Amino acid sequence: MFNLCWADEGGLPAGDRGLAYGDGLFETISMHGERGVLLARHLDRMVRDAARMGIPVALADLHKACSAAIFRYADRYTHRQAGESWVLKLTLTRGEGGRGYQPGPGIKPNLMISAGPMPAAPATTGVAADFSRVLLTVNPLLAGIKSLNRLEQVMAAREIGGDLFEVIMSDTAGNLVEGTRTNLLLKTTDGWVTPPTKSLAVAGILRQWMVERLRARGDRVTERDVTVADVMGSHCLGLYLLNSVLGAVPVRALAGQDLPVDDGLATIFNPFELLE
Amino acid sequence: MFNLCWADEGGLPAGDRGLAYGDGLFETISMHGERGVLLARHLDRMVRDAARMGIPVALADLHKACSAAIFRYADRYTHRQAGESWVLKLTLTRGEGGRGYQPGPGIKPNLMISAGPMPAAPATTGVAADFSRVLLTVNPLLAGIKSLNRLEQVMAAREIGGDLFEVIMSDTAGNLVEGTRTNLLLKTTDGWVTPPTKSLAVAGILRQWMVERLRARGDRVTERDVTVADVMGSHCLGLYLLNSVLGAVPVRALAGQDLPVDDGLATIFNPFELLE
Repeated sequence: MFNLCWADEGGLPAGDRGLAYGDGLFETISMHGERGVLLARHLDRMVRDAARMGIPVALADLHKACSAAIFRYADRYTHRQAGESWVLKLTLTRGEGGRGYQPGPGIKPNLMISAGPMPAAPATTGVAADFSRVLLTVNPLLAGIKSLNRLEQVMAAREIGGDLFEVIMSDTAGNLVEGTRTNLLLKTTDGWVTPPTKSLAVAGILRQWMVERLRARGDRVTERDVTVADVMGSHCLGLYLLNSVLGAVPVRALAGQDLPVDDGLATIFNPFELLE
Repeated sequence: MFNLCWADEGGLPAGDRGLAYGDGLFETISMHGERGVLLARHLDRMVRDAARMGIPVALADLHKACSAAIFRYADRYTHRQAGESWVLKLTLTRGEGGRGYQPGPGIKPNLMISAGPMPAAPATTGVAADFSRVLLTVNPLLAGIKSLNRLEQVMAAREIGGDLFEVIMSDTAGNLVEGTRTNLLLKTTDGWVTPPTKSLAVAGILRQWMVERLRARGDRVTERDVTVADVMGSHCLGLYLLNSVLGAVPVRALAGQDLPVDDGLATIFNPFELLE
């Protein structure tokens, strides 16, 4: 079991390893009133990835903490009639202290819960994106984990300004991997394409859901490396940026070049149908 | 200027970006009474690396904060006659909040200060080390920065147990780069060798000082990639692990194989001569 800490009651202890080393992971969940979009998948991911990091947490305990958070925060953000939206954030860390990088024996994880307003929805007519100059380096041991080590994303996000909604980061081999806060999904003349899970810094909830949904309806979805030519060439029928809070966002311009905008995914991902 | 936060008064705000993303950096300084080992170099590094991350901080302000910390903590750890040792830790973050990875306009850095006891000194007769199974991935933009993104080091440190003092991490090309909390310095039949600065996760204070000191006395020091063969082969006359708090630690056994132990560096690095 973890210690439950509320962000609005001071948050985590000063010696928490989340601050010291980024030794933890987080989930950001789109809430509508008392229900969350793909809530169970978010909690499943946190349990699974915490286990990869060696942080013990039980799914049932996370669900209970979420219920407590909803009881605490839903009223604050919700006119129950209107079902207003808010964002629930869970930050799970290995706990407090230890001898440097080594945690002490019997260390107990900390779970910090916070709530915030929903960000503005991106334009459904498409957004502008650019290539990031910040390389993405992914350690195989930590690939896909939404850990608290997000400095590369922070540095890349500094390139976002003006009309830009996102920048897309590449690995050392030059493959396009993901945006600072979004996964990539490409519609091509040969079906859907998304970079492979093992290459990802963060394996997003919406990406996984979308791959499953598309396959379930019979679409071909291929996980493979994505090059600039894949996106900029004539085989590209549309590029989407996926984020479980922001949705499936079509890119209308990449590095100043117009891309075809296909709004097909907007009709597939309806967050209000995915409340749990 | 930064907000000064004391760890023993609650530390950083719950929404600090240091916790959220590891968006900050730290220094750990060996203190003896009211003076610190290579203190000025530690503060210089923090200012220089903060600038690389786009976190504004003035050296004079850091020095003032250190003076306040020494006033606050030195008595607690020091019998002034005996000059007892303690560890001063400075954690500088980009500050609080923002829209996700993007900091808000006018964000102000936070500096958290904490103090702790000095760790036990490693055996001067040499320590045991092993190779880590955790790969080290270094983003060129962040190479050498002692940032709060230290999850690879945490994962590698989980391999340290029993008699092991340290594990040595390799990059994707198989070169030995550094320990979880130490830099490598190798004495060879062809002079001293240390991995190049651009390959390092953390460019240590003691490593830089040692390279300068060795060169100043006429020794040959080469910065180049270090292979397993370099360390295990007959050209190796000694392997040192460098850490400004722990000192220059000779390795007597690596992955179960005995290494020649040379105590030459112990006579060069005398922390009590480097108090500032």
